[in-house]
Amino acid sequence: MQLIEKVNVATKANLYFDGRVSSRSIFLADGSRQTLGVMLPGEYRFDTSQAELMHITSGPVEVRLPGETDWRALQEGDSFELAAGVEFDIRCQGIAEYLCSYL
Amino acid sequence: MQLIEKVNVATKANLYFDGRVSSRSIFLADGSRQTLGVMLPGEYRFDTSQAELMHITSGPVEVRLPGETDWRALQEGDSFELAAGVEFDIRCQGIAEYLCSYL
Repeated sequence: MQLIEKVNVATKANLYFDGRVSSRSIFLADGSRQTLGVMLPGEYRFDTSQAELMHITSGPVEVRLPGETDWRALQEGDSFELAAGVEFDIRCQGIAEYLCSYL
Repeated sequence: MQLIEKVNVATKANLYFDGRVSSRSIFLADGSRQTLGVMLPGEYRFDTSQAELMHITSGPVEVRLPGETDWRALQEGDSFELAAGVEFDIRCQGIAEYLCSYL
Protein backbone atom coordinates (compact mmCIF):
# COMPACT_ATOMS: atom_id res chain seq x y z
CA MET A 1 0.00 0.00 0.00
CA GLN A 2 1.39 3.40 -1.02
CA LEU A 3 1.32 5.97 1.79
CA ILE A 4 1.93 9.68 2.13
CA GLU A 5 3.69 10.05 5.43
CA LYS A 6 3.29 12.37 8.43
CA VAL A 7 0.51 14.61 7.21
CA ASN A 8 -2.46 16.24 8.89
CA VAL A 9 -5.74 15.14 7.33
CA ALA A 10 -9.05 16.99 7.30
CA THR A 11 -11.88 15.06 8.92
CA LYS A 12 -14.45 16.48 6.51
CA ALA A 13 -14.27 15.77 2.80
CA ASN A 14 -14.51 18.27 -0.05
CA LEU A 15 -17.62 17.39 -2.05
CA TYR A 16 -18.41 18.27 -5.67
CA PHE A 17 -21.19 17.30 -8.09
CA ASP A 18 -23.42 15.86 -5.37
CA GLY A 19 -20.52 13.86 -4.01
CA ARG A 20 -19.73 12.16 -7.30
CA VAL A 21 -16.34 13.74 -6.87
CA SER A 22 -14.97 13.94 -3.36
CA SER A 23 -11.54 14.75 -2.06
CA ARG A 24 -9.64 14.69 1.21
CA SER A 25 -7.36 17.61 2.08
CA ILE A 26 -4.01 16.67 3.52
CA PHE A 27 -1.44 19.12 4.89
CA LEU A 28 2.23 18.30 4.65
CA ALA A 29 4.91 19.15 7.19
CA ASP A 30 5.96 22.17 5.08
CA GLY A 31 2.38 23.46 5.35
CA SER A 32 1.49 22.79 1.74
CA ARG A 33 -1.89 21.30 0.94
CA GLN A 34 -2.73 18.43 -1.34
CA THR A 35 -6.01 16.69 -2.01
CA LEU A 36 -6.66 13.01 -2.65
CA GLY A 37 -9.71 12.67 -4.84
CA VAL A 38 -12.17 10.00 -5.94
CA MET A 39 -14.20 10.50 -9.14
CA LEU A 40 -17.20 8.36 -9.97
CA PRO A 41 -17.90 7.74 -13.66
CA GLY A 42 -18.95 10.96 -15.34
CA GLU A 43 -17.78 14.20 -16.91
CA TYR A 44 -16.87 17.15 -14.77
CA ARG A 45 -15.74 20.73 -15.25
CA PHE A 46 -13.48 22.25 -12.61
CA ASP A 47 -11.98 25.68 -12.26
CA THR A 48 -8.71 26.43 -10.53
CA SER A 49 -8.14 29.16 -7.94
CA GLN A 50 -4.44 28.21 -7.67
CA ALA A 51 -2.00 26.61 -10.05
CA GLU A 52 -2.25 22.84 -9.67
CA LEU A 53 -0.47 19.65 -10.56
CA MET A 54 -2.98 16.84 -11.04
CA HIS A 55 -1.54 13.33 -10.73
CA ILE A 56 -3.74 10.42 -11.77
CA THR A 57 -3.41 7.70 -9.11
CA SER A 58 -6.06 5.44 -10.61
CA GLY A 59 -7.37 5.76 -14.15
CA PRO A 60 -7.93 5.92 -16.95
CA VAL A 61 -9.35 9.39 -17.41
CA GLU A 62 -9.63 11.83 -20.25
CA VAL A 63 -8.92 15.53 -19.80
CA ARG A 64 -9.63 18.54 -21.97
CA LEU A 65 -7.13 21.19 -20.97
CA PRO A 66 -7.86 24.94 -21.04
CA GLY A 67 -8.02 26.30 -24.58
CA GLU A 68 -7.94 22.81 -26.12
CA THR A 69 -10.76 21.05 -27.95
CA ASP A 70 -9.40 17.53 -27.96
CA TRP A 71 -9.59 15.12 -25.07
CA ARG A 72 -6.31 13.58 -23.91
CA ALA A 73 -6.28 10.04 -22.55
CA LEU A 74 -4.35 9.69 -19.31
CA GLN A 75 -3.44 6.60 -17.32
CA GLU A 76 -2.47 5.95 -13.73
CA GLY A 77 0.87 7.69 -13.18
CA ASP A 78 0.23 10.48 -15.67
CA SER A 79 0.08 14.12 -14.60
CA PHE A 80 -0.97 17.48 -15.98
CA GLU A 81 -0.44 21.04 -14.83
CA LEU A 82 -2.99 23.85 -14.67
CA ALA A 83 -2.53 27.56 -14.19
CA ALA A 84 -4.60 29.48 -11.67
CA GLY A 85 -7.95 30.82 -12.84
CA VAL A 86 -8.65 28.36 -15.63
CA GLU A 87 -11.30 25.75 -16.34
CA PHE A 88 -10.68 22.19 -17.44
CA ASP A 89 -12.83 19.16 -18.15
CA ILE A 90 -12.19 15.66 -16.92
CA ARG A 91 -14.16 12.49 -17.52
CA CYS A 92 -13.91 8.82 -16.62
CA GLN A 93 -15.77 5.66 -17.54
CA GLY A 94 -14.84 3.90 -14.31
CA ILE A 95 -13.94 5.15 -10.86
CA ALA A 96 -10.77 7.25 -11.04
CA GLU A 97 -8.56 8.78 -8.38
CA TYR A 98 -6.13 11.66 -8.27
CA LEU A 99 -3.66 13.51 -6.10
CA CYS A 100 -3.77 17.27 -6.57
CA SER A 101 -0.84 19.43 -5.45
CA TYR A 102 -1.18 23.20 -5.29
CA LEU A 103 1.76 25.02 -6.84
CA MET B 1 -11.16 22.97 9.82
CA GLN B 2 -10.82 19.89 12.04
CA LEU B 3 -7.64 17.88 11.42
CA ILE B 4 -6.24 14.55 12.49
CA GLU B 5 -2.56 15.20 12.99
CA LYS B 6 0.64 13.39 11.94
CA VAL B 7 -0.81 10.37 10.22
CA ASN B 8 0.20 8.37 7.17
CA VAL B 9 -2.51 8.35 4.53
CA ALA B 10 -3.11 5.77 1.81
CA THR B 11 -2.98 7.21 -1.69
CA LYS B 12 -5.65 4.81 -2.95
CA ALA B 13 -9.17 4.92 -1.59
CA ASN B 14 -11.25 1.98 -0.38
CA LEU B 15 -14.27 1.72 -2.65
CA TYR B 16 -17.62 0.07 -1.96
CA PHE B 17 -20.95 -0.10 -3.81
CA ASP B 18 -19.49 1.20 -7.07
CA GLY B 19 -17.84 4.05 -5.24
CA ARG B 20 -21.02 5.31 -3.63
CA VAL B 21 -19.19 4.70 -0.40
CA SER B 22 -15.49 5.43 -0.36
CA SER B 23 -13.03 5.72 2.48
CA ARG B 24 -9.46 6.78 3.04
CA SER B 25 -7.23 4.70 5.32
CA ILE B 26 -5.09 6.66 7.73
CA PHE B 27 -2.43 5.18 10.03
CA LEU B 28 -1.72 6.82 13.33
CA ALA B 29 1.66 7.08 15.06
CA ASP B 30 0.77 4.11 17.27
CA GLY B 31 0.23 2.04 14.12
CA SER B 32 -3.53 1.86 14.48
CA ARG B 33 -5.67 2.33 11.40
CA GLN B 34 -8.73 4.47 10.94
CA THR B 35 -10.80 5.22 7.87
CA LEU B 36 -12.47 8.47 6.87
CA GLY B 37 -15.52 7.69 4.79
CA VAL B 38 -17.96 9.44 2.46
CA MET B 39 -21.39 7.92 1.82
CA LEU B 40 -23.62 9.09 -1.00
CA PRO B 41 -27.36 8.88 -0.43
CA GLY B 42 -28.46 5.25 -0.26
CA GLU B 43 -28.76 2.20 1.94
CA TYR B 44 -25.77 -0.04 2.52
CA ARG B 45 -25.00 -3.27 4.35
CA PHE B 46 -21.51 -3.71 5.73
CA ASP B 47 -19.89 -6.57 7.57
CA THR B 48 -17.10 -6.20 10.09
CA SER B 49 -13.88 -8.22 10.16
CA GLN B 50 -12.71 -6.37 13.29
CA ALA B 51 -14.53 -4.63 16.11
CA GLU B 52 -15.18 -1.04 15.09
CA LEU B 53 -16.21 2.28 16.50
CA MET B 54 -18.11 4.28 13.89
CA HIS B 55 -18.24 8.03 14.51
CA ILE B 56 -20.58 10.10 12.35
CA THR B 57 -18.71 13.23 11.25
CA SER B 58 -21.45 14.50 8.96
CA GLY B 59 -25.04 13.26 9.07
CA PRO B 60 -27.74 12.49 9.60
CA VAL B 61 -27.75 8.75 9.04
CA GLU B 62 -29.86 5.88 10.20
CA VAL B 63 -28.34 2.59 11.34
CA ARG B 64 -29.81 -0.83 11.97
CA LEU B 65 -27.47 -2.58 14.36
CA PRO B 66 -26.85 -6.36 14.35
CA GLY B 67 -29.83 -8.29 15.70
CA GLU B 68 -32.06 -5.21 15.73
CA THR B 69 -35.05 -4.53 13.48
CA ASP B 70 -35.51 -0.83 14.14
CA TRP B 71 -33.48 1.91 12.54
CA ARG B 72 -31.76 4.37 14.85
CA ALA B 73 -31.37 7.98 13.79
CA LEU B 74 -27.87 9.35 14.35
CA GLN B 75 -26.53 12.87 13.95
CA GLU B 76 -23.09 14.34 13.45
CA GLY B 77 -21.12 13.58 16.62
CA ASP B 78 -22.93 10.32 17.39
CA SER B 79 -21.09 7.01 17.50
CA PHE B 80 -21.87 3.31 17.61
CA GLU B 81 -19.78 0.22 18.28
CA LEU B 82 -19.75 -3.03 16.39
CA ALA B 83 -18.26 -6.38 17.26
CA ALA B 84 -16.12 -8.30 14.78
CA GLY B 85 -17.92 -10.59 12.37
CA VAL B 86 -21.30 -8.88 12.29
CA GLU B 87 -23.42 -7.16 9.66
CA PHE B 88 -25.09 -3.80 10.01
CA ASP B 89 -27.14 -1.56 7.77
CA ILE B 90 -26.67 2.15 7.32
CA ARG B 91 -28.60 4.59 5.18
CA CYS B 92 -28.60 8.31 4.48
CA GLN B 93 -30.79 10.73 2.55
CA GLY B 94 -27.97 13.19 1.95
CA ILE B 95 -24.20 12.79 1.76
CA ALA B 96 -22.87 11.53 5.09
CA GLU B 97 -19.37 11.07 6.44
CA TYR B 98 -17.82 8.92 9.13
CA LEU B 99 -14.60 8.13 10.94
CA CYS B 100 -14.15 4.43 11.65
CA SER B 101 -11.69 3.27 14.31
CA TYR B 102 -10.72 -0.38 14.58
CA LEU B 103 -10.78 -1.66 18.15
